[in-house]
Amino acid sequence: MTREVLEALPELGEVAVGLLHVHIRHTSASLTLNENASPDVRRDFETWFSEAVPENFPWTHTLEGPDDMPAHVKASLLGPSLSLPVSRGRLALGTWQGIYLCEHRDAGGPRSLVATLHGEGEL
Amino acid sequence: MTREVLEALPELGEVAVGLLHVHIRHTSASLTLNENASPDVRRDFETWFSEAVPENFPWTHTLEGPDDMPAHVKASLLGPSLSLPVSRGRLALGTWQGIYLCEHRDAGGPRSLVATLHGEGEL
Amino acid sequence: MTREVLEALPELGEVAVGLLHVHIRHTSASLTLNENASPDVRRDFETWFSEAVPENFPWTHTLEGPDDMPAHVKASLLGPSLSLPVSRGRLALGTWQGIYLCEHRDAGGPRSLVATLHGEGEL
Repeated sequence: MTREVLEALPELGEVAVGLLHVHIRHTSASLTLNENASPDVRRDFETWFSEAVPENFPWTHTLEGPDDMPAHVKASLLGPSLSLPVSRGRLALGTWQGIYLCEHRDAGGPRSLVATLHGEGEL
Repeated sequence: MTREVLEALPELGEVAVGLLHVHIRHTSASLTLNENASPDVRRDFETWFSEAVPENFPWTHTLEGPDDMPAHVKASLLGPSLSLPVSRGRLALGTWQGIYLCEHRDAGGPRSLVATLHGEGEL
Repeated sequence: MTREVLEALPELGEVAVGLLHVHIRHTSASLTLNENASPDVRRDFETWFSEAVPENFPWTHTLEGPDDMPAHVKASLLGPSLSLPVSRGRLALGTWQGIYLCEHRDAGGPRSLVATLHGEGEL
């Protein structure tokens, strides 16, 4: 979702050097950076995380459904926020780095993000 | 421990927009954000992490006890710090997001944190 | 690689309070903080991550070799960046905390980092 983040933040173009912090306001979804080219990578993420943190586990917090507690653990493994370097009005990411919004519920609903941009403005 | 962090940082109330960085100065404890309502979630975290990173594993670094090396791995999986958005004098977290201090040793002793707050002050 | 980072950033000595952000511009390598004393810890990290995210898994993204997809997952588990507190011209880390550059490919080639330092300068 790199494109969606950039489109929502035209102010980024005015920052010569700084940091963009993106935070997801949920405990069953997460943000990470990874390969932005092949959709295979995202599918393999899903497969590995579903096996590593399975629904079939002696969870005690099961009131919200079998996918809830795995979602909480996955969310903390990947983390709720990213701090990304900004240089000359652009994200200074590697060529293959893109922002993933990781939805860990089967039906998570809309997700809300907070972006915080800071830095120096002279390009 | 969201409450403990906020009580230690009355300055947060003067920040209109910014970021709070909280860092734990240890390699066998960590910080994460997760569900702040049900204690079941914290118990299930403990169960899952203890199974995923077990004491019974061919560790070579065992001088400091069987719980030491699992603690180091868990600490890096969850991470040593959080950057949290601040808006109008408050943490701009989601409703269910609370700060967990994750103790990964059986007897970890006191833990020390460093908080760094920056932003703009006009509310 | 704490020493390499510090040697590349003499400006750190002029920051009284602030944050250093270090970012790796790759999706198959990562940064973490962990025990800086015993090389055993780094070896055990390697052993655990290789077992937790194995090459022998039903990956679909295999074009770049059997170590590629495990590297992507490990990179996101550990994360691409660190935000480190700075105090009185030094990193305010714990005694045992050091920066690890985690290479997750068998032959990853050179890795590129971006460092962003901000804070207040009066010591």
